[in-house]
Amino acid sequence: MHEKPMLQGIIPPMVTPLQERDQLDYEGLERLIEHILSGGVHGLFILGTTGEAPSLSYRLRREIIELTCSQVNGRVPVMVGITDTSFIESVNLARHAAEAGAKGVVLAPPYYFPAGQEELLEYLDHLTPELPLPLTLYNMPSHTKLMFEPETLHRAMDNPAIAGLKDSSGDMVYFHRLQIFLEKRPDFHLLVGPEELLGETVLLGGHGGVSGGANIFPRLYVTLYEAASGGDRDRVEELHRTVMHISNTIYSTGRFNSSIIKGLKCALSLEGICDDFMAEPFHRFRDAERQRIKRHLTEIKNNHPLP
Amino acid sequence: MHEKPMLQGIIPPMVTPLQERDQLDYEGLERLIEHILSGGVHGLFILGTTGEAPSLSYRLRREIIELTCSQVNGRVPVMVGITDTSFIESVNLARHAAEAGAKGVVLAPPYYFPAGQEELLEYLDHLTPELPLPLTLYNMPSHTKLMFEPETLHRAMDNPAIAGLKDSSGDMVYFHRLQIFLEKRPDFHLLVGPEELLGETVLLGGHGGVSGGANIFPRLYVTLYEAASGGDRDRVEELHRTVMHISNTIYSTGRFNSSIIKGLKCALSLEGICDDFMAEPFHRFRDAERQRIKRHLTEIKNNHPLP
Amino acid sequence: MHEKPMLQGIIPPMVTPLQERDQLDYEGLERLIEHILSGGVHGLFILGTTGEAPSLSYRLRREIIELTCSQVNGRVPVMVGITDTSFIESVNLARHAAEAGAKGVVLAPPYYFPAGQEELLEYLDHLTPELPLPLTLYNMPSHTKLMFEPETLHRAMDNPAIAGLKDSSGDMVYFHRLQIFLEKRPDFHLLVGPEELLGETVLLGGHGGVSGGANIFPRLYVTLYEAASGGDRDRVEELHRTVMHISNTIYSTGRFNSSIIKGLKCALSLEGICDDFMAEPFHRFRDAERQRIKRHLTEIKNNHPLP
Amino acid sequence: MHEKPMLQGIIPPMVTPLQERDQLDYEGLERLIEHILSGGVHGLFILGTTGEAPSLSYRLRREIIELTCSQVNGRVPVMVGITDTSFIESVNLARHAAEAGAKGVVLAPPYYFPAGQEELLEYLDHLTPELPLPLTLYNMPSHTKLMFEPETLHRAMDNPAIAGLKDSSGDMVYFHRLQIFLEKRPDFHLLVGPEELLGETVLLGGHGGVSGGANIFPRLYVTLYEAASGGDRDRVEELHRTVMHISNTIYSTGRFNSSIIKGLKCALSLEGICDDFMAEPFHRFRDAERQRIKRHLTEIKNNHPLP
Repeated sequence: MHEKPMLQGIIPPMVTPLQERDQLDYEGLERLIEHILSGGVHGLFILGTTGEAPSLSYRLRREIIELTCSQVNGRVPVMVGITDTSFIESVNLARHAAEAGAKGVVLAPPYYFPAGQEELLEYLDHLTPELPLPLTLYNMPSHTKLMFEPETLHRAMDNPAIAGLKDSSGDMVYFHRLQIFLEKRPDFHLLVGPEELLGETVLLGGHGGVSGGANIFPRLYVTLYEAASGGDRDRVEELHRTVMHISNTIYSTGRFNSSIIKGLKCALSLEGICDDFMAEPFHRFRDAERQRIKRHLTEIKNNHPLP
Repeated sequence: MHEKPMLQGIIPPMVTPLQERDQLDYEGLERLIEHILSGGVHGLFILGTTGEAPSLSYRLRREIIELTCSQVNGRVPVMVGITDTSFIESVNLARHAAEAGAKGVVLAPPYYFPAGQEELLEYLDHLTPELPLPLTLYNMPSHTKLMFEPETLHRAMDNPAIAGLKDSSGDMVYFHRLQIFLEKRPDFHLLVGPEELLGETVLLGGHGGVSGGANIFPRLYVTLYEAASGGDRDRVEELHRTVMHISNTIYSTGRFNSSIIKGLKCALSLEGICDDFMAEPFHRFRDAERQRIKRHLTEIKNNHPLP
Repeated sequence: MHEKPMLQGIIPPMVTPLQERDQLDYEGLERLIEHILSGGVHGLFILGTTGEAPSLSYRLRREIIELTCSQVNGRVPVMVGITDTSFIESVNLARHAAEAGAKGVVLAPPYYFPAGQEELLEYLDHLTPELPLPLTLYNMPSHTKLMFEPETLHRAMDNPAIAGLKDSSGDMVYFHRLQIFLEKRPDFHLLVGPEELLGETVLLGGHGGVSGGANIFPRLYVTLYEAASGGDRDRVEELHRTVMHISNTIYSTGRFNSSIIKGLKCALSLEGICDDFMAEPFHRFRDAERQRIKRHLTEIKNNHPLP
Repeated sequence: MHEKPMLQGIIPPMVTPLQERDQLDYEGLERLIEHILSGGVHGLFILGTTGEAPSLSYRLRREIIELTCSQVNGRVPVMVGITDTSFIESVNLARHAAEAGAKGVVLAPPYYFPAGQEELLEYLDHLTPELPLPLTLYNMPSHTKLMFEPETLHRAMDNPAIAGLKDSSGDMVYFHRLQIFLEKRPDFHLLVGPEELLGETVLLGGHGGVSGGANIFPRLYVTLYEAASGGDRDRVEELHRTVMHISNTIYSTGRFNSSIIKGLKCALSLEGICDDFMAEPFHRFRDAERQRIKRHLTEIKNNHPLP
């Protein structure tokens, strides 16, 4: 057992640059990786929700694992999402990730059948022996319908193959409840999903965030993380305001739940970084929304502190 | 456009007989198909919820499509579930189903990302041109988080490639609302999922059911369907009572949502038809539950009318 | 213990005719009661959801109890809703109802605090000794957040002061599950709330319905009930179609959940029966919706069989 | 318009000391008020969720308003919950509160009928002219089923009679979204409900908390508030740990949602402050739970920093 968490800091959940329904935007992928890494991030998480993983074919998932690990080339740890409703396919992806050089895998509960908490624990006990890499759990009840209840996580933490948790529930009472468990596992990393909560969780001892906005503004989130872990409350407040502004503009332009990913991809396209094609059942913003994102981007750059 | 619905009657959602995590119980599959067909069913639906499809590897899904179509050999139409979060993988499965000789495919909404109703319609518009077989929609909000709202279905019915709907919402007000739409599409089939609702939906003009219990007692559901479509209310009441008894015993033995499929597989195993191994995240009943299912089976055979 | 249920047939949930926020439309109330009774209904239920009870002052609730009991004058049993978050206020209303001559009280679970099922059972055990009238339970999870789980109801049925259940869950699998319990309590009445389900529940042994539409078309629902209890499936289908049409027009005109009550009150106002003023937080339909309701009413009268 | 919010700091939601179903524990009430005020709190909120208001008779609600205002006697502002499903009864309570000398009223949305957001806005527009005291809105979706959506609150803030919001959603992304609106209303107070979130909200600019634990340990929450508003992160972390420990012990002893209020009342009873009788549908802890709460209290006093 290590003394320190494997992951700390900003580990952006990378969007998946696509050119068509089943084809990567290869040049966009390369530019995007370099753009994110130039911000000083502490890791890279591919094939998560922001990466539209469940919407991609398995062929394309394997391809993006290989290309990303090769492009990153060890500069930061690459984490690979293996969430799947099929146990076998999760294991297959994990093996592929290990061979490609990834450093960890990330898994939300299987999300079709609503399993009970004991079934979930048993599932994890059966899964981890098959995984060649340390596992970060991913709490995402809005999409999986299933929460890792505190007691479930407490018991799962007895399994040393489980290295951490990314919590995207947005429920801070829950988050604080989990933090208490870290006393028995000082090596366990506890990361927050929603970037609107990055400042406060790190101020109160969290280890960092899987911040979608770091696809566009990686240095903003890295600086916010550093200010919060250093206890600079004024700087945290200032940067938090910018984060909230991004959330209220770039992420809030469409009508549906998909507007966060659409906004991110649209902004990346406007910045010339990668294509904004989206996998079904979603579609890129049409021109009206695109113009609004463009104005928001300009306004953010002019009026908000971006480190 | 045909005048009559493609499907009417009992189309059992077949369980998937497994021997191990990624291996079919080949002999059990053969016996199970013959057992179901011997009951006079009107079709066979594989790779649905009862078939644990989302928990199976793609390799195994292709295998069961081939073996089932080959074993059925045209005696009844085989319907194949292609529900998937990935558009590409749904299309791949549909093509495989067509090559194997299936007669239709069945699809619930992509179930990871919560799509809006317009996104769902657009998704269907993009999907159907890629499908080589007629499509039956599958409403299953408890597992997909997403409903085909009545207005959405009404618009989807303008697409002639969409041949019917299987509704497993259990919401009869919704079901009756949909029935009104059949005026514009007399060829559209409207089937009910929960077998507890089979009698009343057919009494009021529904086309039949995708009844899980028909894995064990195929003739019971076929006879109930015939009584209801013939308007024999006394016989419907009598058989409905048996259906409710099965629901309250075989399906209600475990603590979790999975107890329906576990109960079905356990009963099939007790009957010597196929193995009761289950795909992760579920597990077969342990001995205590198995003994209870055994007693229930005996009691049903002794005390309830089974045609 | 009686051998027959206390209530069978159509027991309309009467709307509360208002002239202002805290004032009854006295003449409208008289006309409405006579209109409903003229349709041959089997009881009258006041201060339910359709009666906007939770939105009314206690003073007005007592007033409507007195006036209704006096006007009905024993022609049919009057049932009084006493649902409240406060135990004391429920008991106060029940006593008032008994003094005024009502024949029973109706109670949904207290709906602010989410009680557990055992707390709910204990609450009923404490409540019934304080009630001077037999109690009908009211299952309305969409508004109370709390369901009488089947096992809870099964245990509650051991309490002879509990005379029946009105189920407005719309969940027919649940309804059928409860029906099995009637074997131990042949005197227990099981009524259905949503009128879209009236035909099928009575065809399969239910005792009748608390049908909101009977405020306008009382004879329609009475006739449907009689056809269904007599087993005349063709007549049931025909009348059921009219019921569905009312549901799809009169009840579906507004944008919010309140559109059922708004539609009912608007139609009653157009018929010259009573005022359509509504208690906060709702408001009567404005002119555009009123014109649509008017057209719907005309169309129903012209094209649909109204007995 | 004032420049500063009317309320800042710790405004405990007082439990209602009861001796029987409809009778106050008069001496306990006096002791409780003095105990809370001795901790330096900045206000007192009666008849909220923690005060079991919806479960109390109107008679008792009026009594506790009078007695509390009289006992507090102007030392801190008294806020009175007027949440009700009936508009008239809310207004009645507000008038009573004003006459007794309260300084403000607090209102969650009417919680039986699920109103739309526009209906909710209109309801507020109709209500505030009838209220003799400034109104604090109360967001409590777990109990009311209805959220003040950000856009709804933004529009409600144009109404100067609405003085603030208490948010008990526990959704910090939502909370931060609301904070941005304070730019247009610097006099608007934004308080947090769950005390587990007190530290971080005040660190990031929130105005304080309605902390249930301040019934027992008022000085703890006051000191935490002061540390957070003064930016002393180490002290915040230390006191936050105690707050989390209370949450994980005193509040987590029972099986149901009611365990927070039960735990608070039980602890107050053990401390000799007031009776732990609870209004239906809840009941005081039995002896086993009481012994656990006793051990927790001892352990907290021995091992945790209580200012």
